[in-house]
Amino acid sequence: MDVQNLKPTGSFKLTRVGVTGIKKPINVKRPDKVVTLTGEMDVFVDLPASQKGSHLSRNVEIISEILDRSVRQPVLCLEDLCEEICHMLLDRHEYASSSEVRISADYFLEKALDSGKKSLEGYKLIAKATAKRNEEMAIKKLIGVEVIGMTTCPCAMETVRKRLTAEHPEAAECLKTMPVVTHNQRNETTLMIEVPKGYEIEADDLIQIVEDSLSSPTYEILKRDDEAEITLRAHENPKFVEDVVRDILGKILIKYENLPDSVVVTVRSESEESIHKHNAFAERVTTLGELRK
Amino acid sequence: MDVQNLKPTGSFKLTRVGVTGIKKPINVKRPDKVVTLTGEMDVFVDLPASQKGSHLSRNVEIISEILDRSVRQPVLCLEDLCEEICHMLLDRHEYASSSEVRISADYFLEKALDSGKKSLEGYKLIAKATAKRNEEMAIKKLIGVEVIGMTTCPCAMETVRKRLTAEHPEAAECLKTMPVVTHNQRNETTLMIEVPKGYEIEADDLIQIVEDSLSSPTYEILKRDDEAEITLRAHENPKFVEDVVRDILGKILIKYENLPDSVVVTVRSESEESIHKHNAFAERVTTLGELRK
Amino acid sequence: MDVQNLKPTGSFKLTRVGVTGIKKPINVKRPDKVVTLTGEMDVFVDLPASQKGSHLSRNVEIISEILDRSVRQPVLCLEDLCEEICHMLLDRHEYASSSEVRISADYFLEKALDSGKKSLEGYKLIAKATAKRNEEMAIKKLIGVEVIGMTTCPCAMETVRKRLTAEHPEAAECLKTMPVVTHNQRNETTLMIEVPKGYEIEADDLIQIVEDSLSSPTYEILKRDDEAEITLRAHENPKFVEDVVRDILGKILIKYENLPDSVVVTVRSESEESIHKHNAFAERVTTLGELRK
Amino acid sequence: MDVQNLKPTGSFKLTRVGVTGIKKPINVKRPDKVVTLTGEMDVFVDLPASQKGSHLSRNVEIISEILDRSVRQPVLCLEDLCEEICHMLLDRHEYASSSEVRISADYFLEKALDSGKKSLEGYKLIAKATAKRNEEMAIKKLIGVEVIGMTTCPCAMETVRKRLTAEHPEAAECLKTMPVVTHNQRNETTLMIEVPKGYEIEADDLIQIVEDSLSSPTYEILKRDDEAEITLRAHENPKFVEDVVRDILGKILIKYENLPDSVVVTVRSESEESIHKHNAFAERVTTLGELRK
Repeated sequence: MDVQNLKPTGSFKLTRVGVTGIKKPINVKRPDKVVTLTGEMDVFVDLPASQKGSHLSRNVEIISEILDRSVRQPVLCLEDLCEEICHMLLDRHEYASSSEVRISADYFLEKALDSGKKSLEGYKLIAKATAKRNEEMAIKKLIGVEVIGMTTCPCAMETVRKRLTAEHPEAAECLKTMPVVTHNQRNETTLMIEVPKGYEIEADDLIQIVEDSLSSPTYEILKRDDEAEITLRAHENPKFVEDVVRDILGKILIKYENLPDSVVVTVRSESEESIHKHNAFAERVTTLGELRK
Repeated sequence: MDVQNLKPTGSFKLTRVGVTGIKKPINVKRPDKVVTLTGEMDVFVDLPASQKGSHLSRNVEIISEILDRSVRQPVLCLEDLCEEICHMLLDRHEYASSSEVRISADYFLEKALDSGKKSLEGYKLIAKATAKRNEEMAIKKLIGVEVIGMTTCPCAMETVRKRLTAEHPEAAECLKTMPVVTHNQRNETTLMIEVPKGYEIEADDLIQIVEDSLSSPTYEILKRDDEAEITLRAHENPKFVEDVVRDILGKILIKYENLPDSVVVTVRSESEESIHKHNAFAERVTTLGELRK
Repeated sequence: MDVQNLKPTGSFKLTRVGVTGIKKPINVKRPDKVVTLTGEMDVFVDLPASQKGSHLSRNVEIISEILDRSVRQPVLCLEDLCEEICHMLLDRHEYASSSEVRISADYFLEKALDSGKKSLEGYKLIAKATAKRNEEMAIKKLIGVEVIGMTTCPCAMETVRKRLTAEHPEAAECLKTMPVVTHNQRNETTLMIEVPKGYEIEADDLIQIVEDSLSSPTYEILKRDDEAEITLRAHENPKFVEDVVRDILGKILIKYENLPDSVVVTVRSESEESIHKHNAFAERVTTLGELRK
Repeated sequence: MDVQNLKPTGSFKLTRVGVTGIKKPINVKRPDKVVTLTGEMDVFVDLPASQKGSHLSRNVEIISEILDRSVRQPVLCLEDLCEEICHMLLDRHEYASSSEVRISADYFLEKALDSGKKSLEGYKLIAKATAKRNEEMAIKKLIGVEVIGMTTCPCAMETVRKRLTAEHPEAAECLKTMPVVTHNQRNETTLMIEVPKGYEIEADDLIQIVEDSLSSPTYEILKRDDEAEITLRAHENPKFVEDVVRDILGKILIKYENLPDSVVVTVRSESEESIHKHNAFAERVTTLGELRK
């Protein structure tokens, strides 16, 4: 008899029981090719008070079966993979009333510079799904991206502009509009959005929205002219982390105007401040309905 | 004029704006002495749609003022420190309606083995507070601990017991009760509990509750006999991560029977499975009221 | 004119100048298929005292060119990829006299259990090459693996055996040979070996050598019988980290008896002790010649 | 009998056997007070081919005894603590011929801004010692610091200067000398230096040398004027990571002109490039004698 099936003493139900840190290769279908991502997964079900343990090996078996199949038949997207695992978790853990799956993976996209040069840039994909058995198998799933880019500080720029104008009165006129020295830094911004049943959201679009909301995207390869171009553009577009989050929220409203009000959106931006040892941070967790008010 | 005070275009309020990853030494008063902890802090306020940026330097100034004072007048506990910072955040960010502070720090306690030997063991303290301005400055605060210990698997133990009994029928009788071979591993368990106004919760008690709920606590120094003692005791007490979480919940109900129903409790246990490359995980997030049902 | 080409004041040569943390997908040819790994790379050249800066963008261009080509023509192994990048670094950094490349990547292998079941297991590959211009382009390259497995403590097992024998004299005879309770834990072992010119070393062989030297390999999927089998086998095979390192060294001598004495070998084993909060560690850095003495 | 003392089969000596990741509070005497640091320690001895295992519990006992004493009698510096542990390791591991100890710890120093404001800044201390039994107990010890600061790119600054001059010919004259827009970023620089017998090296001096060699130190608290001042100063002082390392080497030669030629110096600087997703890196590992040539 399974120890897991024993009736526990001191009985409480548990919110999440499962396995974390499972790494597996995942074949994902893209418009023009199949890419192999290295996914890291966490997989949970809940546990009623009446059951001593959860059969954790079933979680890993499910992942294995699905990913074996993905070698022949690539998955369409990570959030659909999460959903499929969620359903199978409820099938095989007969005692569970809910299931949850999270996947993250490095991901690469070719990006073009203004000069026409192309650079393969790295991002992180995040996907998550939760399922409930007794609500007609209600599924919630979300897709997200983590994007590294650049922010330039608007506040230091204005204080510096005043000081330079005082020191160089002869340049006062052009200092009014010229991009001026400020601190800038590496920024990591996360955007996650719920994907309601019947809708599709493309991770590449989320990456584009984030990159368009930073002072500038960053690139692995920059020759001298590109580097000057990117640096100047970032300084013509100074942004607090607050601005980055708000600009993403604004773009989300336009891009996904057809999505229902209930859709949950999380935007988080963190700058590794170059003039401090700590980071600057801004976040909004909300629904499209709230944003539309 | 401050750039931060500008009226933003494309205006959305933000849930959290602040600074993360601030490290500072904190002097904490213990019954018999003052200890210096190295705290890592995250500090946030919310931001209304009408304000372009949050004055982040105020956050760091507040921390600095309080910790300067703690050199002369040590803080009583980390959750009270969080609360005090929360209040000052609302004082100095006049546009904010809520504030939030999180602190974590390495912490050490002397623990005695049965043999009488003493060992200084390391833990992590976690504290958090949130304040809301328009609810009579409603404060919520919590204290938590992260404890490293040991779990031994009850399931493998029973399967192994059957196999050994079949292979060694002459030892069948004593195999019924003798601790039997199983996989065991390092486990990290987190317990966090809300501290309601007017109550005190001692982090050392939380550590004790967690250590009493594992298969065994672990120790930095173990001579051969102590090592055998701890190993055997852990095998007399096999536990799934599910059991660890439930045993903590049971002990919390007894220890804190005077705390109100509304108190939020989070228990999370993760075992670095020795026979797998992934971890086993169990969690309950609930209130004392729910647990008492 | 390039700032990098300026003559520096206060002139010292530098040992390593380059870029770290570059992530890229790498297509690698395996006997029966092409696999895509997500590699993380560090790429360096030295810098003479006469040159102000190194042209870092050239490093990333080289990686990009080679990996673009690998889409059509997969690389044979990571250490050859390191070597090729090393050569191109010396070609394009005309001032450099040495170059160095390091790559690490998650990697997966299908492993069979005794029960015949198959499980896809995760490992880490490590590759490195260094080149020197003025020694007929002398190249050194190495391949390595990081393997997660299981160790069971021989010392606690013997002390426990004595105690159990004293407590259960009736079982004394079978306790002499039966696997007995001990602490066991997750172990991470690294094996790196130089690949001399004209030789090939297969990473899969290195993984096998490490797994054969642990108390037991670990598996992502284990049904109850497999779990008991693996647990028992690990207890029939108790190992200190010292034993793991020595057993690997012994197997290396046999497997690679045809490799020259000059070949450098590094073996490192770290156990996340289940009864302590710290790790146990053993390491040998040596040459095959030293080991053969 | 100890399992560790058994004669091993398949016998090889081992370079390092010990324990890693031990965390302990350490009381350190400073000129004007005693500070408590949270140290993380790795402790090793070598192991001859004739000894099966190292008695790891002795390592932790030694640390414990010394740190217990440090409560009453604070240690003078981390490198002397390493040395003392090294000696005791050789005393208690009678089979060992060498020992090694590494400690790292967060550390804080009050720094003054030009405006007179003071800010408590965080650093990392690193200390290491190795001892050899058969060379009259030859000891080598080193002290090091990890410092977070700021670099501004000289290359992008010059390209941008040319573009701005072409676009704003009326400002050509003042653009010749005015600090001009460039990318800047958080930088982490490590400086480690051997402390020969009879000499003392103060970690605070090493921190000062690193901060004087960056484009600018960074500060936790900066009001608007300080922020502009630091930003401008960093732009008047653009630096590649190569420059940071070389400037530190130059200052080391002057500050430690009385130290012998044999002293080993390691300098490493890594910038989290704001316009790239990867880091820029420069390193020199050498001796004072080599630098003096």
